[in-house]
Amino acid sequence: MKSKQSPNRILLSEREIPKKWYNIAADLEEKPAPPLDPQTRQPISPDRLSAIFPQSLIEQEVTDKKFVRIPQELLKVYAKWRPTPLVRARGLEELLETPAHIYFKNESLSPSGSHKLNTALAQAYYNKLEGVKRLATETGAGQWGTALSMACNYFELGCKVFMVRSSYDQKPYRRAMMQMWGAEISASPSEETNAGKNILETHPDSTGSLGIAISEAVEVAASDVETKYSLGSVLNHVLLHQTVIGEEALKQMEKAGEFPDTIIGCVGGGSNFGGFAFPFIREKLEEKARARNMRVIAVEPSACPTLTRGVFTYDYGDTAGLTPLLAMHSLGHDYIPPAIHSGGLRYHGVAPLISSLVNAGLISPVAYTQNEVFDAAVKFARSEGIVPAPESSHAIRAAIDEALRAKSEGKREVIVFNLSGHGYFDMGAYDDYLQGHLADSSVDEEELQRYLNQLRLQSPPK
Amino acid sequence: MKSKQSPNRILLSEREIPKKWYNIAADLEEKPAPPLDPQTRQPISPDRLSAIFPQSLIEQEVTDKKFVRIPQELLKVYAKWRPTPLVRARGLEELLETPAHIYFKNESLSPSGSHKLNTALAQAYYNKLEGVKRLATETGAGQWGTALSMACNYFELGCKVFMVRSSYDQKPYRRAMMQMWGAEISASPSEETNAGKNILETHPDSTGSLGIAISEAVEVAASDVETKYSLGSVLNHVLLHQTVIGEEALKQMEKAGEFPDTIIGCVGGGSNFGGFAFPFIREKLEEKARARNMRVIAVEPSACPTLTRGVFTYDYGDTAGLTPLLAMHSLGHDYIPPAIHSGGLRYHGVAPLISSLVNAGLISPVAYTQNEVFDAAVKFARSEGIVPAPESSHAIRAAIDEALRAKSEGKREVIVFNLSGHGYFDMGAYDDYLQGHLADSSVDEEELQRYLNQLRLQSPPK
Repeated sequence: MKSKQSPNRILLSEREIPKKWYNIAADLEEKPAPPLDPQTRQPISPDRLSAIFPQSLIEQEVTDKKFVRIPQELLKVYAKWRPTPLVRARGLEELLETPAHIYFKNESLSPSGSHKLNTALAQAYYNKLEGVKRLATETGAGQWGTALSMACNYFELGCKVFMVRSSYDQKPYRRAMMQMWGAEISASPSEETNAGKNILETHPDSTGSLGIAISEAVEVAASDVETKYSLGSVLNHVLLHQTVIGEEALKQMEKAGEFPDTIIGCVGGGSNFGGFAFPFIREKLEEKARARNMRVIAVEPSACPTLTRGVFTYDYGDTAGLTPLLAMHSLGHDYIPPAIHSGGLRYHGVAPLISSLVNAGLISPVAYTQNEVFDAAVKFARSEGIVPAPESSHAIRAAIDEALRAKSEGKREVIVFNLSGHGYFDMGAYDDYLQGHLADSSVDEEELQRYLNQLRLQSPPK
Repeated sequence: MKSKQSPNRILLSEREIPKKWYNIAADLEEKPAPPLDPQTRQPISPDRLSAIFPQSLIEQEVTDKKFVRIPQELLKVYAKWRPTPLVRARGLEELLETPAHIYFKNESLSPSGSHKLNTALAQAYYNKLEGVKRLATETGAGQWGTALSMACNYFELGCKVFMVRSSYDQKPYRRAMMQMWGAEISASPSEETNAGKNILETHPDSTGSLGIAISEAVEVAASDVETKYSLGSVLNHVLLHQTVIGEEALKQMEKAGEFPDTIIGCVGGGSNFGGFAFPFIREKLEEKARARNMRVIAVEPSACPTLTRGVFTYDYGDTAGLTPLLAMHSLGHDYIPPAIHSGGLRYHGVAPLISSLVNAGLISPVAYTQNEVFDAAVKFARSEGIVPAPESSHAIRAAIDEALRAKSEGKREVIVFNLSGHGYFDMGAYDDYLQGHLADSSVDEEELQRYLNQLRLQSPPK
């Protein structure tokens, strides 16, 4: 029953934290094409992955179980901030004068400031169980590095972070935050790995990329038996861990007595999007009446248009070509997207699970320019009182446009998006925007076409 | 009933947001000495305050009612983030291996990042009701300026902020955050006011102080009929608004089935401390058995030791001497404390209500050096996953010391402190600390004694 007094925030108790993660792969009639061994180009055997991942995560990566139980120990840590609130964005609704109901899942309230902590803790936990001493990883904007540093600190693991050089220089406070949790940080490309040295030889002034930083972290993990590699997005097990977001949101929408007509998330590698959207998409796959017409929108930057313009193919997850080949939309593993403030969305590829759902027509991708996104971010900040991360603001932009469309069509639709993180470490970007200095970095069309054409020459995954 | 499964966070529903603020003055046998008119040195008439404050806030300043109803409109806005959680700091307890139960009230989850928003919204609301068009204020570390900017944006008022020059230069992101909410910011001392010009004439390189910034804001308000002045701490009505913190915490402790043996807060002007502590102190004033032995600890920086070393006297709230004279502990209204990272605690005076309770022996003040405080902050961050504001970390330091004392005495005490804000905008200070570069700015003893001796010459308030 709804009334004028219906709450702004739909809260769940700690007891209502989901007890299982949801594995959408189990529900797909057409399974995503498997990762390939880069040497043999045959489906990679799980054993080959054990140099860089612990056994339990490899099992989660390939499992066909529909649900995976969340260990008690993790539920205990999740309870430090989960369940996160689902918030009715009444301020934004009023600003837009829309009949639409807008909700957002507030993952920015996590101790690390974003959804990344959900999988960081899970990965640290499983590695710890298997006797791993240290995790190596990459970070772009810094959200993932922060989350993994916190998680390693919690489970008493060492943490080595390769931070994309441009972020390392621009965001000293992100670095300080990771050091606060005891992590060891290097600017990438670094002299510590062959992958890094190779880049520096040809590009001594390289400002780095996520792809390069991944190569460095993988190399470190592969060459030290006590160190494993940890990835903050893209892979099945990462998206799996993030489904706590959507499972909670589903319960919360039930409490609100509504069901979304449209769900929206931003997409870089795809982890916040997948984690938020998959439990809702399950309702659609199970052909539940209420979900039949639900639309699912994935939002990316025009400057890194992986889903809207990339080629569906087998490509590496990193620049140096150390990872397995993944069946995904890609701009090319050595393509370097132009600089934007949404470092977390500046990745050449995307999660195979999401690519596969886009191919199946279950997810509609859309792209926005940087100024469109910051315009939405400031509208949201002023009406809801939360400074959103530039990444998350892509979802806000789409939610605003949907709400305005609903208004022009006179429809009382229900729009739900995921606020994946806060923007307190991005005030420099906001300052630029407010002073009118923010550039709409766009892709070099000729260069991008060259990369895409090269990818089109490959035979597509089956 | 408690069990192993007792929750980490004690949550209240939106319906449980307190409906009334608590006015501790009504419960004090000995009332605090009244503010004096700086011209006549007689108790100031409320009319004289109406140049800078709206009528409704002046009434709250002098009311003898025990409770003041919170307007419906404000409850609606509070519900955007209140009630805030009361958190059992199990991580910190484990780190300290203490039998004590440590709880903290998490005010850092407010949209502005601190408790300041509780009164900022209230003040903006009442000013708006009375037709005021703009508010002028000062800010040190930036927490208050951010909160008032947000509140003015919400109630569609203009906002003029004088930001202490040293913060203005060191914290461009705080400035950007205030601009995000549409506020107009000037570095103080500025050329825009006589108070500012006078300082700049004698000290062209002045890095400012809260006292100077207050003078500038008061001057602007007094000279423009459409602008009123807004203060983030010290005054009765400000502390009144903050009592939502303590009222919630009181309910939450009841839910937890415990009552504090010790409550702790940091003190600058005194608003987070008063707002948190007063409802608990009420239990003591009403001689409830459970509160009889409760200790109340106010924590301040050794570099600005207002309560531990200041003189109880009548002094101005600002440097230029534009405000009424307040009966409070003071280091001298023109004393400039050494630079520390806790800008919010760097104030020469303190709320008269708190001074009065210290005099009555109901509050015990204690002071810590900067490195002691940051040591505690990092311990807290690593065990609880939250980066605390340097100001709030003073309370953490005392909570840790109490928990260690309880351990050495083998006592299972209950310690509750207020986490007034987060430290995401203070990572520069943390970076210094982690790299071992943080100085323990201490007072110039001779200079301080000179100021204190001068204050001792005055006749104390009765």
